[in-house]
Amino acid sequence: MALETEDLFDSSDSVRSGKPLAHVQTAVFPGPIRLVNGGVLPELTIAYETYGTLSEHKDNAVLVFHALSGDSHVAAHDENDDPGWWDLLIGPGKSVDTNRYFVICANVLGGCRGTTGPDSVNPETGKKYGVDFPSITVADIVDVQRRLVESLGIERLLAIIGGSLGGLMALDWGSRYPDGVAGIAAIATGARMTTQALAFDIVARNAIMSDPHFFGGEYYDKDRGPAIGLAIARMLGHITYLSQESMNRKFNADRNVGRKIDTSFETKFSVGSYLAYQGDKFVERFDANSYIALTLALDAFDLGHDRETLVAALRRSMCRWLFVSFSSDWLFPTFQARELVDAAICGDKRVSYCNVKSDCGHDAFLLENELPVYGSLVSSFLHNLSLDWNADDERRQALAESYGKPDAPQKTRLDYDRILALIPPMTKILDIGCGKGELLARLKARGHERLVGVEIEEGLVMKCVERGLDVVQLDVNDGLKSFSEHQFDFVVLSKTLQTIRNVELVLDEMLRVGTRAIVSFPNLGFRRHRERLNGGRAPLTDPRPGREWYNTNDVRFLTILDFEEFCERKGYRIYKKASINSTTGEQIDCDDNENADVVIVVLGR
Amino acid sequence: MALETEDLFDSSDSVRSGKPLAHVQTAVFPGPIRLVNGGVLPELTIAYETYGTLSEHKDNAVLVFHALSGDSHVAAHDENDDPGWWDLLIGPGKSVDTNRYFVICANVLGGCRGTTGPDSVNPETGKKYGVDFPSITVADIVDVQRRLVESLGIERLLAIIGGSLGGLMALDWGSRYPDGVAGIAAIATGARMTTQALAFDIVARNAIMSDPHFFGGEYYDKDRGPAIGLAIARMLGHITYLSQESMNRKFNADRNVGRKIDTSFETKFSVGSYLAYQGDKFVERFDANSYIALTLALDAFDLGHDRETLVAALRRSMCRWLFVSFSSDWLFPTFQARELVDAAICGDKRVSYCNVKSDCGHDAFLLENELPVYGSLVSSFLHNLSLDWNADDERRQALAESYGKPDAPQKTRLDYDRILALIPPMTKILDIGCGKGELLARLKARGHERLVGVEIEEGLVMKCVERGLDVVQLDVNDGLKSFSEHQFDFVVLSKTLQTIRNVELVLDEMLRVGTRAIVSFPNLGFRRHRERLNGGRAPLTDPRPGREWYNTNDVRFLTILDFEEFCERKGYRIYKKASINSTTGEQIDCDDNENADVVIVVLGR
Repeated sequence: MALETEDLFDSSDSVRSGKPLAHVQTAVFPGPIRLVNGGVLPELTIAYETYGTLSEHKDNAVLVFHALSGDSHVAAHDENDDPGWWDLLIGPGKSVDTNRYFVICANVLGGCRGTTGPDSVNPETGKKYGVDFPSITVADIVDVQRRLVESLGIERLLAIIGGSLGGLMALDWGSRYPDGVAGIAAIATGARMTTQALAFDIVARNAIMSDPHFFGGEYYDKDRGPAIGLAIARMLGHITYLSQESMNRKFNADRNVGRKIDTSFETKFSVGSYLAYQGDKFVERFDANSYIALTLALDAFDLGHDRETLVAALRRSMCRWLFVSFSSDWLFPTFQARELVDAAICGDKRVSYCNVKSDCGHDAFLLENELPVYGSLVSSFLHNLSLDWNADDERRQALAESYGKPDAPQKTRLDYDRILALIPPMTKILDIGCGKGELLARLKARGHERLVGVEIEEGLVMKCVERGLDVVQLDVNDGLKSFSEHQFDFVVLSKTLQTIRNVELVLDEMLRVGTRAIVSFPNLGFRRHRERLNGGRAPLTDPRPGREWYNTNDVRFLTILDFEEFCERKGYRIYKKASINSTTGEQIDCDDNENADVVIVVLGR
Repeated sequence: MALETEDLFDSSDSVRSGKPLAHVQTAVFPGPIRLVNGGVLPELTIAYETYGTLSEHKDNAVLVFHALSGDSHVAAHDENDDPGWWDLLIGPGKSVDTNRYFVICANVLGGCRGTTGPDSVNPETGKKYGVDFPSITVADIVDVQRRLVESLGIERLLAIIGGSLGGLMALDWGSRYPDGVAGIAAIATGARMTTQALAFDIVARNAIMSDPHFFGGEYYDKDRGPAIGLAIARMLGHITYLSQESMNRKFNADRNVGRKIDTSFETKFSVGSYLAYQGDKFVERFDANSYIALTLALDAFDLGHDRETLVAALRRSMCRWLFVSFSSDWLFPTFQARELVDAAICGDKRVSYCNVKSDCGHDAFLLENELPVYGSLVSSFLHNLSLDWNADDERRQALAESYGKPDAPQKTRLDYDRILALIPPMTKILDIGCGKGELLARLKARGHERLVGVEIEEGLVMKCVERGLDVVQLDVNDGLKSFSEHQFDFVVLSKTLQTIRNVELVLDEMLRVGTRAIVSFPNLGFRRHRERLNGGRAPLTDPRPGREWYNTNDVRFLTILDFEEFCERKGYRIYKKASINSTTGEQIDCDDNENADVVIVVLGR
């Protein structure tokens, strides 16, 4: 390969040389190992690496699952070591801080980087398995990881982190070994492959298996294997890992400038050279039978094919969940993460979710661009899992002090005091438009156990996760489809009504999901607003400096009377009403439509 | 193939048997035919079909360009004829009405359905061209179509319609033969392939050319050709023609149920059976060398790689343009149509654009689902081209009467009268939020020649196209990037300001694009609104019945004073102001902030 190509081909994906990794350990288990589809392995070898130190309480183990073509080398062990495929995220002082956590990463069953797979030698025959390698499922792959964890003397993991295929594995673990892990971060993944993603895998397998040098999988003793087919499969894979935008960014400027690389494939266009290079490189380090075995396992995986089965699968889990998707990922599109989130919520699980804004496609979870977001989410998630685990207050305090990020001092919000006063202890609360989670944090401090926030802004979602709150990123204007009937005692919408387009939908949904709704909003009937309009100027309900009629987020204007009439029309019953002058703090009982600037209402059916 | 598969495999794409078409005519041209890349053809045969009758004035010829794997058989000629690939659109009484228009469709140069291509016999050698077939470009393909049109005695086409590859051809024609056509409908296409689409083509070619039965293209005299590689290429193609949603809809219900079909490819999953079937069928009717020649021409096509070159290319055109994209098309995504529209607008061309809402992907332009939209757009476009062509008033009138759809009677809008009075004759007008085009239609009747509408709603865009107006579908909250500095004399925003989120951006943009802006909006300072608030209820500026504070589209509330202050702050100058009581119709000159409910303002810098 000529030097000039190197600038072009810095791939996010682990373009790893085939050379042995220095820090790999192996664990060997005697057979027979029985597999889901009926196959049996006479012996099992697992290649894995570990980072950091397992704590005395064995409460800091983090298991990382790699994607299709990854391996155990998730991070460099020291300065002289080869880079790991997730060096950005994992290491001393990083998001997954190996000074704090004991990180384990193993090559998957069926892989070709040390763990038993089709190119391993079958001890019963002394020859490589090849086509005799039994059919495997994601469950088998996960069982092997579980075997390793047990053999390390770890009964319960602090966390599992997995992206892509690793995400499917994490989902499988969560539903089948519910008590084995405190929290799971499932990143850029889904309950099963989309039909489109499945179709790409099928074309890839067709390319490999139609390669005349595949020999039905018995190519190990031949001069050459199905290098063409495997390279074509890999080219397809690379297209699906990138987004339209990132491909254009990478290759549009010198689109027609092919690179001089030593390949039998087309190199006419820059993107063609890239694909040819990636395809050829992949053949050097990956085994075609592994590719087939692993993609078949991926394609057959199905955590639940509809809401009912998916809820049932996630209901079994006992861990906290963090789901992360990336907005431009089309291999595991956002709607798939939403399906998982919806099911977890419906199953009353503790779950947080962020759809990270990104134009890097599926690869985003391995790239630096969005690391400030997904790295922070993972780091906060792990930190709060640690705090949860340690019921022992003293140790918890120590942990919090050594690692915790102190909350910024809060501004007093009078309406929060009132809302808190309206909420009975120990009730279940959903806070819509929860912002940084101030209200939820105060409820948490008061001992409420089931608290969920909904928020649309990424930065605020991050802040809530940092605080250890469960928060789901969604646009409430689309409704609250994720939630079931009367899943909460109270659904709160504080000072958000005036920013909502689909008012009727949102209020209907609040009273479907909650037994009671608590709604606070600015009252346009307030004397000051009337005076302003009488003076010829439009009233402004948005108190933030610099906000005027043309740039406020407030798009709905209503008085207390308007709202009361609306409730009557809709058949909502107003159980309580607290009208406030927020400047003086006094509660207004007389002529509130003129004297109160904020009102808080408790609604029900 | 078993009968049970048929339900699954009704493909939108023309799965055409290889049998000869009954109504094909051929035109033969002696060589040498010189090609852009230096090659020469000793002779040229064009296979084409025609529908309807060429009019006496030769002013009704519509040339249709097919997509990659299409052919001349665009529609059935009679009841007993095979279906055509665009039967939905073209035929007697259809959108492209063959009772009215003379439709021509020819197989493309380099194809394999009658027109000279790699599998044609080279008269100089008596053997098929194979690899000796010279390299072709989209320009060569278009030149061949032009040759045919000339040979039919047609100097100027009424219209060209093309989708996908056919769209690229239409663009090329428009920029290189500017006086040869009155209007071009370019559907589901772009100025060039995206990097992603290019990458898929490259992988497809790699699959074909790596097939050991390709023999470097010299497979015609062999027992078999590169059937595997071509089938894999076709499978990939099919994935890109469908959307995530349409694939799920088609294959998710019985995902794991493979079909019994006679194929060497994987049939484990329903989508796999589909791909295998489509791949195998394609090989029966298409030539691998054609596939390579045509995709290479597609991939090299570049109407303009940035705004400047694209504007230059489209500036040469003299026709009216209709661009249609489909929201879920990811082979030619919406942003590509937008680039074309932007460039055409910037080049001061007459252009309409609709991004048809669809979940059917690229294939949408061949499917029934969105036919009511794209069919209507094409039909209206052709009809108005006919009217334009016939400057002869009598004939124009006759045409309009025989085919035109009469406008619904208009409600009188008082503010339109006032706005019309503010606009000098013959000025260039951009109407933002133009709705059904009432104002534009009145301006058109008054003789304004350069009129453009911007509208976000598909149904209203269709209505404008029907009226023969130039309308571009876009969300004005994103600005007016398509338009250049002072491209218009007046930019009108009538009764739309109050529905806009990004007020500052929109007004800034209006005064960039127009020398003057005309803005009308409801005045919140109007006495009735004050009285309503003084009575304890929020004022309502939206007059439509059933619209209340919670469901009005009005999201901005301002008085005349607010707007005047805003203009001062922004440095806009108010040149004229007409304040109106819209109930009485009187113009308010005294204390308008209290006495007028609507105000119309002429702004400038």
